[in-house]
Amino acid sequence: MWYKQRPMALIECVPNVSEGRRTAVVDTLVQVIRDTPGVRLLDYSSDASHNRSVLTLIGDAAPLERAVLALFEAALPLVDLRAHSGEHPRIGAVDVVPFVPIEGVTMAECVALAKQTAAEVARRFDIPVYLYEDAADNPARKNLEDIRRGEFEGLAAKMSAPEWTPDFGPPTPHPSAGASVIGARMPLIAYNINLATDRLEVAKTIAAAIRYSSGGFRYVKAMGVRLADRGIVQVSINLTNHEKTPMFRVFEAVKHEAARYGVDVLESEIVGLVPAAALVGTAEHFLRLASFTREQILEHKLRTGDRAGS
Amino acid sequence: MWYKQRPMALIECVPNVSEGRRTAVVDTLVQVIRDTPGVRLLDYSSDASHNRSVLTLIGDAAPLERAVLALFEAALPLVDLRAHSGEHPRIGAVDVVPFVPIEGVTMAECVALAKQTAAEVARRFDIPVYLYEDAADNPARKNLEDIRRGEFEGLAAKMSAPEWTPDFGPPTPHPSAGASVIGARMPLIAYNINLATDRLEVAKTIAAAIRYSSGGFRYVKAMGVRLADRGIVQVSINLTNHEKTPMFRVFEAVKHEAARYGVDVLESEIVGLVPAAALVGTAEHFLRLASFTREQILEHKLRTGDRAGS
Repeated sequence: MWYKQRPMALIECVPNVSEGRRTAVVDTLVQVIRDTPGVRLLDYSSDASHNRSVLTLIGDAAPLERAVLALFEAALPLVDLRAHSGEHPRIGAVDVVPFVPIEGVTMAECVALAKQTAAEVARRFDIPVYLYEDAADNPARKNLEDIRRGEFEGLAAKMSAPEWTPDFGPPTPHPSAGASVIGARMPLIAYNINLATDRLEVAKTIAAAIRYSSGGFRYVKAMGVRLADRGIVQVSINLTNHEKTPMFRVFEAVKHEAARYGVDVLESEIVGLVPAAALVGTAEHFLRLASFTREQILEHKLRTGDRAGS
Repeated sequence: MWYKQRPMALIECVPNVSEGRRTAVVDTLVQVIRDTPGVRLLDYSSDASHNRSVLTLIGDAAPLERAVLALFEAALPLVDLRAHSGEHPRIGAVDVVPFVPIEGVTMAECVALAKQTAAEVARRFDIPVYLYEDAADNPARKNLEDIRRGEFEGLAAKMSAPEWTPDFGPPTPHPSAGASVIGARMPLIAYNINLATDRLEVAKTIAAAIRYSSGGFRYVKAMGVRLADRGIVQVSINLTNHEKTPMFRVFEAVKHEAARYGVDVLESEIVGLVPAAALVGTAEHFLRLASFTREQILEHKLRTGDRAGS
């Protein structure tokens, strides 16, 4: 084991598996995670039209690596991409495995964990593996979309080009399991801001103003959508790095842009899980908190295990 | 044991002991807490002029009761109020013991824990015990100040009046240990708001506007003070129930009142520990979060131990 001994690191791992229809297969994979000591399954969901399942695990580095290897081992005999169809792009049976730093662990450590796991997946199962996001050594492989372009069906042709030699494993696709993409990234927050209007163009204009691709914040993806059942519109946002582009800044920017059109923010919503740090940072901002440290949060002190007095 | 089996309740307990000068005595008491399984010592501090120490422990009900009983047992031979002096009012060797609900536990359960502990302290050590705050059956005993008025030196005379018959234990003071006050209350947040002015009257006027005693918020105590070294003034606040009088409401009220005098809020600060819920509630407010539940906080899911998938 190369892992350092530390009190308790919290790393999230979110494997995406190319099976979302056969319940028995999904149940088997879920059980493999539940049976791995030191790993907790926080959540999982399957989408039949995507034919894809997303599992959310959490734990320290060593147990997570064991869980991911066990997941590959269980999935390989059960998931064959030659017989797979679904709306969501994919190149592998275990398609994507990101490691996400949550607490008491650096991004560098998650990158090291991703590389270690990728090397072991390639060695044990003879699967080509690409490193992505913060784990990518090659800038052309940072974006998942670029690696996955062409999908499983186009993978053999794609890999014949030297620039698509995998980071680990054989230079050709695994016959049934394709290739896998393993990496490290910041936690992603799915964050929507609902506007008190039914004018879709307002939501679209604001989305364009705040998203990276059109000149907005670096770690924001956004689009304007209509919530037909409620008669309002929404700026639907993915925050890909809440430390560098925090929630409160995006909220205030949307509020400011909306006011330009005489529109107010009705409410915002977080879809799924959010790290406590994102909410604490928001409170710090709006309360103008000075010299506040996370050590002052009672529950934080509990987890970090400091029994020393003052 | 009458305690229900639950996944994990977090109760804070903050015993105040009438000894803040003899380091060896304080060390002995601290060690007693550290040696109690299931209880964590989060913090302790001693004040020589007050001649008083405050310990902050956390744990579930049964371990906390054991820790408090062990603390009484260790303190009784070491702390004699007949030879005690200090600036802070006190009636007992172990003067006050509040239990505070933090997570996964109701106030009613903390009240039950306070009563159970009070009865056991009285039975084992023959000490009169008064119940206070949320644990008080008698409204005249809700406020600690009322129970403690007259202090140790006036206790025998006070207890001769029928309205000061203790809730548990003998009708006269313990010779060396006086009486103890045990109860349950909400977590107290020490919260200061600094104003961008040196006009003390502005801080004093705002403090009067927001505090309960002069017509302000029900769970706010406040005073205006000068921070001479920084050339500014501060509204120094105790929030005695952050659920019913939340931080963001007090912050916004102070900001609004200050604007009346052409003054802005420079910053605010939290002194000591704060429950995560107070910060999360603040983020919910300012982000106008709709249908958010604490289950969505990643770290919360970890502690509550839900392994079920969706």
